[in-house]
Amino acid sequence: MIKGVVKIGGALGNNPQPLLKDLAGRFKEGERWILVHGASATMDLLCRSIGIEPRYVTSPSGYRSRFVGDVEMSLFESAALSVTARTCFSLCRLGVPAAACDPVSERIIEAVTKKYLREKVQNRVKILRGNRSGTIRNVRTELILDLAERGFLPVIPPLAADLETFEAVNVDGDRAAAFIASAVGAEVLILLSNVPGLMQDPSDPDSVIRQVEGDEFETASEVAQGNMKRKVLACREALDGGVELSIISDSRVDNPLTAALTGGGTRLCKARSTGIAV
Amino acid sequence: MIKGVVKIGGALGNNPQPLLKDLAGRFKEGERWILVHGASATMDLLCRSIGIEPRYVTSPSGYRSRFVGDVEMSLFESAALSVTARTCFSLCRLGVPAAACDPVSERIIEAVTKKYLREKVQNRVKILRGNRSGTIRNVRTELILDLAERGFLPVIPPLAADLETFEAVNVDGDRAAAFIASAVGAEVLILLSNVPGLMQDPSDPDSVIRQVEGDEFETASEVAQGNMKRKVLACREALDGGVELSIISDSRVDNPLTAALTGGGTRLCKARSTGIAV
Repeated sequence: MIKGVVKIGGALGNNPQPLLKDLAGRFKEGERWILVHGASATMDLLCRSIGIEPRYVTSPSGYRSRFVGDVEMSLFESAALSVTARTCFSLCRLGVPAAACDPVSERIIEAVTKKYLREKVQNRVKILRGNRSGTIRNVRTELILDLAERGFLPVIPPLAADLETFEAVNVDGDRAAAFIASAVGAEVLILLSNVPGLMQDPSDPDSVIRQVEGDEFETASEVAQGNMKRKVLACREALDGGVELSIISDSRVDNPLTAALTGGGTRLCKARSTGIAV
Repeated sequence: MIKGVVKIGGALGNNPQPLLKDLAGRFKEGERWILVHGASATMDLLCRSIGIEPRYVTSPSGYRSRFVGDVEMSLFESAALSVTARTCFSLCRLGVPAAACDPVSERIIEAVTKKYLREKVQNRVKILRGNRSGTIRNVRTELILDLAERGFLPVIPPLAADLETFEAVNVDGDRAAAFIASAVGAEVLILLSNVPGLMQDPSDPDSVIRQVEGDEFETASEVAQGNMKRKVLACREALDGGVELSIISDSRVDNPLTAALTGGGTRLCKARSTGIAV
């Protein structure tokens, strides 16, 4: 029933409006989507406006994460839900009944908190304690699907409830979208951000890798730098969870959803033989 | 077309769920409402979680206000929109297409910033500068009414855009509800909070004043203490703006909207002779 889960990046340089317009058009034609959004630029702005410098760390295996302590978590929860509200406002103005979702209060998304982050500084590995980010373990699909069946377009921020304490934790938006796509049995996962796709050379937009299949994932993961590394991981997790196709594509073009579905960006699938027509 | 504007308090002790259930039932029967919400407890919690003590001041004429400096304003905007998102989530789960509104980004509500607050401390009046609260001057009703006509229930946080700088300012939720009620030509304004109505003696819930009319407003305003003072002012502003009936009533009872419309709380109207049947 759900055509796809689309995630729109929250970093500077993303413009959600083209996606929301595209999504509205497809929704009105009967396609059912779930929207997951990031909140990174809004969070950084909020932090800086009260004198806190956002902190990002890169793990020994090359994954970049925001450090979220107790103070940052309170701010992140508000910032993320404020983006949810604004995104829903735009969708409603386009005539789409968007349903703002709070994954924490109803424990729609449950996660295990990674209480510390490992940071590679020069050649040493530092342990940062007091982290409030989580890895998703469970999604209450019945609640999300119920909203979709009642004609709503669920809009979901990158938040979850800790499995044991039920407290809010921050989750990675790309992996959240992947987990949700698998859980609801979506056909496709689309990760839109301010880059044209997975690039062989991050400084060359013409070097987008058009397709990643089967045993090419190892290479793709090595090619990916910074935030792209986790996008490739998320795509792989979605495919492992039964999603037929994952696409990493550009949020900044006209009709970015349609562009992604018609050959834009990087398409990731399990094996060359699947031959899905989406 | 709009039956009424209802404002639900954001202070501790308010429970929005009974209202949202009541609102959902009435909405499904075809009544059109606009919901304005407060964010006071959420804001206080957010402030304290990052080590900022919320500051309230009482003016020489007895009105109580939150002091909102630059830091508080960033926090307040996020906190208020997070309440909007959560409120919309509850309404959508009840099957109501709630439209989260961001009064700032589209300048739905415009206000003049009161750059300083006057505080009465003992017998001296102190001036607090750097305040970011505003007095509403203009509401873009066409945008709100367009949402309502398309079948949405607009949900509005106590925010506005400064008339000159377009920056976010905090506004009083009760007066915002009153202004919106007048602007959209609503029949009734209902202010729900964690008290049973305007009370002769604030410590005695049985002392609720059932009706305030015509020349009784001066007395009512004198009887009102703390936050109630501004509620009486808001009711009066709504009546002056053409709303037929204002009600101050209890948010904590079952079906609080229906209770208010059928004789609960304090009814405020222009003159005894109006004889409105609502």
